[in-house]
Amino acid sequence: MNEIKTIAFDADDTLWVNEPIFTNTRLRFEELLANYISQESLENELYNVERRNLSLFGYGIKGFMLSMIETAIELTDGKVSGAHLQQVIDMGKEMLAHPVHLLPGVEETVLQLKEDYNVVMITKGDLFDQENKIARSGIAQHFGWIEIVSEKDEASYQEVFHKYQVDADSFLMVGNSLKSDILPICNLGARAIHIPFHDTWQHELIADLDYDAVFKTAKKITEVPRILAQY
Amino acid sequence: MNEIKTIAFDADDTLWVNEPIFTNTRLRFEELLANYISQESLENELYNVERRNLSLFGYGIKGFMLSMIETAIELTDGKVSGAHLQQVIDMGKEMLAHPVHLLPGVEETVLQLKEDYNVVMITKGDLFDQENKIARSGIAQHFGWIEIVSEKDEASYQEVFHKYQVDADSFLMVGNSLKSDILPICNLGARAIHIPFHDTWQHELIADLDYDAVFKTAKKITEVPRILAQY
Repeated sequence: MNEIKTIAFDADDTLWVNEPIFTNTRLRFEELLANYISQESLENELYNVERRNLSLFGYGIKGFMLSMIETAIELTDGKVSGAHLQQVIDMGKEMLAHPVHLLPGVEETVLQLKEDYNVVMITKGDLFDQENKIARSGIAQHFGWIEIVSEKDEASYQEVFHKYQVDADSFLMVGNSLKSDILPICNLGARAIHIPFHDTWQHELIADLDYDAVFKTAKKITEVPRILAQY
Repeated sequence: MNEIKTIAFDADDTLWVNEPIFTNTRLRFEELLANYISQESLENELYNVERRNLSLFGYGIKGFMLSMIETAIELTDGKVSGAHLQQVIDMGKEMLAHPVHLLPGVEETVLQLKEDYNVVMITKGDLFDQENKIARSGIAQHFGWIEIVSEKDEASYQEVFHKYQVDADSFLMVGNSLKSDILPICNLGARAIHIPFHDTWQHELIADLDYDAVFKTAKKITEVPRILAQY
């Protein structure tokens, strides 16, 4: 294989905290509706509604807000009060304005890698939302380019490779999601480093490693430079 | 000025119908809540809520859905029923799945211009939404590149110019919004052709032409090739 030239970082839960903000809101949503419905049925139904709406809404907080509202209406047979639904909207707005907390060691690692590689960012989700987070992260200026995509699969990575004239065999992706950051990349013949995060949305989970993708695993981002040396 | 090399088209209400879909939904929303509130106060309040939410939601149908829900809750003091709010969500989903109707002459004009220019698309809005519309438009393959931006102002156009190595003085933009498609482009020293559309969201309106931007105006897209010859 060729020498690695471009290192791409996923953003949510790789560079900064994201899923815990959703998890926290899910808990608050369950508390809010505790008088109407049990926690468990709410959790299951919210996930069902989210999945059902994914093909229309895509990823992101606004779609999540709409799915919470729809779940609340559905499970209460329309009895949920307007005041409660306004609280759901307000919880979503808090998420949208939530401060961006970088994970430990992110900035130093990116700066270190930048000396030897073209360091870039590929993040999935709502354009407006991701742009806001990138701007507020304080580290946008360290990245050669930043690409926001609506889905991370082989086709969308190939488009990005084409757009930036990147060869798969000189490209390495670092991310927390096997499904979005690691497998499609390995399938395209590029390399990847997986950094598991403690909190993963069930939609991003993969049941079993029933594939032969070859990637390395890091416990935290600061290990990436050392692992790169082994490639 | 240099020869024009790149012609960029705005998409919504330049290549295909968009604002009438919003207008139609606003009317249905007013009908739905006619028992609670007068049409006029609803219309004004919805626009106020939309503007207030713009900095958190950005442009697009999901944000519009959330603003309709918030407006309905606010103006009815939380009395709006869950069933009615579900209808609001369903109206939004219909918008998201709405067929893409090309405006007359679009495909023939793009194909004609493609012979002499790099024809591209720059559209503003929700990433997932816009990608879906682009895919369903059936004309995506005619464009050299397509860029979806969250805002159309001088800074975002400059980023696009930088990304695609475009010189402002060899660039021409075609679009229906003076605010988004014409003025920032003229301010950057590029050229523009304005094609007014009969239905424009009030947020995109500009009170007066109190600027000295120089652009041409076309009645319809099929006039663009002839107007280009005059530049």
